[in-house]
Amino acid sequence: MSRPKLIPRLCVIGVGLIGGSLARSLKQAGAVGEVIGAGRRESTLRTALELGVIDHFSTDLPLAVSEADVVVVAVPLGAIFKVIAAIADHLPANCVLTDVGSAKGSVIADVYRVFGAPPATFVPGHPIAGTEQSGVEASFPELFCHRRVILTPLLETSASAHEVVRRMWETVGAEVVDMGVDHHDEVLAATSHLPHMLAYALVDSLARMDDRAEIFRYAAGGFRDFTRIASSDPRMWHDICVANRKHLLEVTARFSEDLNRLIQAIEASDGDAILEIFGRAKRARDNLYLNEA
Amino acid sequence: MSRPKLIPRLCVIGVGLIGGSLARSLKQAGAVGEVIGAGRRESTLRTALELGVIDHFSTDLPLAVSEADVVVVAVPLGAIFKVIAAIADHLPANCVLTDVGSAKGSVIADVYRVFGAPPATFVPGHPIAGTEQSGVEASFPELFCHRRVILTPLLETSASAHEVVRRMWETVGAEVVDMGVDHHDEVLAATSHLPHMLAYALVDSLARMDDRAEIFRYAAGGFRDFTRIASSDPRMWHDICVANRKHLLEVTARFSEDLNRLIQAIEASDGDAILEIFGRAKRARDNLYLNEA
Repeated sequence: MSRPKLIPRLCVIGVGLIGGSLARSLKQAGAVGEVIGAGRRESTLRTALELGVIDHFSTDLPLAVSEADVVVVAVPLGAIFKVIAAIADHLPANCVLTDVGSAKGSVIADVYRVFGAPPATFVPGHPIAGTEQSGVEASFPELFCHRRVILTPLLETSASAHEVVRRMWETVGAEVVDMGVDHHDEVLAATSHLPHMLAYALVDSLARMDDRAEIFRYAAGGFRDFTRIASSDPRMWHDICVANRKHLLEVTARFSEDLNRLIQAIEASDGDAILEIFGRAKRARDNLYLNEA
Repeated sequence: MSRPKLIPRLCVIGVGLIGGSLARSLKQAGAVGEVIGAGRRESTLRTALELGVIDHFSTDLPLAVSEADVVVVAVPLGAIFKVIAAIADHLPANCVLTDVGSAKGSVIADVYRVFGAPPATFVPGHPIAGTEQSGVEASFPELFCHRRVILTPLLETSASAHEVVRRMWETVGAEVVDMGVDHHDEVLAATSHLPHMLAYALVDSLARMDDRAEIFRYAAGGFRDFTRIASSDPRMWHDICVANRKHLLEVTARFSEDLNRLIQAIEASDGDAILEIFGRAKRARDNLYLNEA
């Protein structure tokens, strides 16, 4: 007799980079019985099936979740409300519901809109992992290895649902951390959403300065790394910026003030002020990535 | 009888990442007879000697250049005037003088201040290469392989001096491009100096939001790449920002306008405007690095 699976029946709604990598990794670990992929586009689901990422698929969301033990919603933030509204009345009792959205306040607001009060089985989650690639073709089982996953459980969340989601992420190699919803959205606005905004704005600004894109020919390795995140999926990042607008605009306002101070220091050739900013930044980053080189 | 060397006697003033890598690579190619390292700090020069990067050294600049065929000034921009002033009267006739500064207008202004009119042997240059590391310990001979080197020869520059510098860079694997001084300084302000300013400003802004640096613990791989250039040498980048201030402030003003437009679009949840900016940026960057993945 084989060992009971952590998740006998997993339903992943949105089989892209994150959903696909999670399914691959749980399968590889032998932690799932079967994986049902669900979503709007049959072609994507068929590709996922051919790649062995999922075992079955359906574009009928109520059907796809109807016998699931865990449902992972891995669609872009702007699509979460519709997905949850579609499945709410069809989730089996005790089926754990979780998501992977990069902003948590908006997902929780969506859950309130659908359910009234959040169900005890709902565990908001966010794996801090990804690449500038997207789609199931880019998925790979090691994506979450040594990455952090932040869970923002609510007062209503049951200990058992919380535990299932924590174990699911630990099984794929992640370090799981619990955090308050607002704190999560503030921190991610600063370290992820603002940098993406800056990278997109810079590349677009430069492209518009120079029709022939000649300017980019003289870009060095630093530019390549600096702008890598501007190759991320525009629709996904549109959704994130809108969903986490409040925190993103707050952190952007603070950054803009700091940037203006630097611009003024350069205008004034104020060497001490420039060196203070550059030096503090270098120390902070070097401390962060001590072992890089 | 051995083949005559491209540069029988090379003097590198400032044996750091760039100067050291150039010396290593020219030696490896058998293109130099001997390499004299020069600079202020004896300890650095001694390290370069021990690493085999240079054959002799001197902290006496007039002595170091006195028998050189080519002098490469590879000190930070803020130190170039002093260096050129110190060697001007001691350069042998026909000794080619070049530099590696990241802004060219300021170097040329320094040369005017020292010489009155630029000598025919002076060829301003800029290898678009480097890492966030610095110092001779970080130097390596492949640094310039498949990189671009921009030369901004002046009306006064002789064809033969120009040719020597071009061949020097081609010997170490670089693709050499000629460009006008102002055009160089504009392009580099956009693709290099502004990104460095943004990376420094962002890391400093985040570090100051959060004393305990807890915020950085939840940064993902994208942040690591985005901020890599903030680990660059603060003094060097201070010098570049001040030296290329005019062009840097111009391009920063245009970027700030574009960033504000994006911020307003996010404030207004204007999906079309956000998607237009993000989509155009992604297309521009994907076109630039077609073979990345």
